[in-house]
Amino acid sequence: MSGRALEALEQAEVVVGYKAYIELIFGLLLEKEVMSSGMTKEVERCSLAINRALEGKKVALVSSGDPGVYGMAGLVLELLEQKGAVESLDLEIIPGITAATFAAACLGAPLMHDFVVISLSDLLTPWEIIEKRLEHACRGDFVVVLYNPSSRKRTEQIHKAREIMLEYKKPATPVGIVRNVARKDEVSVITDLERMVNYSIDMFTTIIIGNSQTRRVGRFLVTPRGYRL
Amino acid sequence: MSGRALEALEQAEVVVGYKAYIELIFGLLLEKEVMSSGMTKEVERCSLAINRALEGKKVALVSSGDPGVYGMAGLVLELLEQKGAVESLDLEIIPGITAATFAAACLGAPLMHDFVVISLSDLLTPWEIIEKRLEHACRGDFVVVLYNPSSRKRTEQIHKAREIMLEYKKPATPVGIVRNVARKDEVSVITDLERMVNYSIDMFTTIIIGNSQTRRVGRFLVTPRGYRL
Repeated sequence: MSGRALEALEQAEVVVGYKAYIELIFGLLLEKEVMSSGMTKEVERCSLAINRALEGKKVALVSSGDPGVYGMAGLVLELLEQKGAVESLDLEIIPGITAATFAAACLGAPLMHDFVVISLSDLLTPWEIIEKRLEHACRGDFVVVLYNPSSRKRTEQIHKAREIMLEYKKPATPVGIVRNVARKDEVSVITDLERMVNYSIDMFTTIIIGNSQTRRVGRFLVTPRGYRL
Repeated sequence: MSGRALEALEQAEVVVGYKAYIELIFGLLLEKEVMSSGMTKEVERCSLAINRALEGKKVALVSSGDPGVYGMAGLVLELLEQKGAVESLDLEIIPGITAATFAAACLGAPLMHDFVVISLSDLLTPWEIIEKRLEHACRGDFVVVLYNPSSRKRTEQIHKAREIMLEYKKPATPVGIVRNVARKDEVSVITDLERMVNYSIDMFTTIIIGNSQTRRVGRFLVTPRGYRL
């Protein structure tokens, strides 16, 4: 967590968030009004946070990683717009360390060169758009970072994504898989595009697929930037 | 800065970095051995840091943003490999907040959906590869984040990149420009693809170009994720 995020939490009178994230920071929330709820309640949580803020409270809405990467920042702005209140609040979006770069640090240095970030969740995005993006990510020889690769109800997407990538990338392309990134039970493995689906992949997993230059360096992954050594 | 980065600096006996970054944290470095040097001395700085570490010192090598995104993490691993010392050091790569998500937070929430990160520096990468990546980034309708858009010696790249993007994206596509991100003199502006080059763009500038859904919400930029409101 950044110093600024910690400070904002300390200053908040009301803290709102997804319950699993609130549990992670519960020790920081003594004597504050805390409101948490479950998955798929994003719109409700953001509305709650906005309403308390419009009532004059200092409110912190908690995201994990970075609130601007598939997080709550955009939803808050859209809801404020709907209420005609975009300019009425003293709103600060505090950036954080997103799963892509946190997972990269666990794996070595796979993001030293141009990369794409794609969510495989088709709950809010048509699958055809995700497929098109995977295809162009491969054709541009980008390193590919996958968010939300799989969940209890969505298990086929990661298999389809791998098949699309195998049309453009070699089966031996290095792949890093990190589960529970930045948590106590974080685990990571380095494998390849051919074998990646043999590992357990869930909604708390971030996957990084190399470009044509990515290679193993000892127990690490590196995408060289091109320095002459 | 994250708590872990601060802790690592406090524990370090030797701190190595680009001189402009060392200046930013000079107050934290009292009573430490500090080695700094200028631009293009990256290989030298990493070698220095590695040598001191192999001598048994606790060394912190400082990057701004995230060391794994066009930073020093990969170079350190490649140099360790060259010395046959990848496994001999207790190496920790500490992730940080990269310019893409920091700039996004200044601008609102432009990275709520799939995005690419591309460096326009052709010092280490052939320009043809950068062009191909820009093209596929547009064809996949990604939000595009540009690092290193311009420098004193490289001024044409941003104009060429804009022309490529104009072949695929509308001239009115929203663009956010952030200079000196996370510094005291940070400034940001929201404009569009047509007019973006009318603003001052240098090597301390990060540029975010929207996808087909990105729009202005008050003084912010938002790429909607697709929640029903």
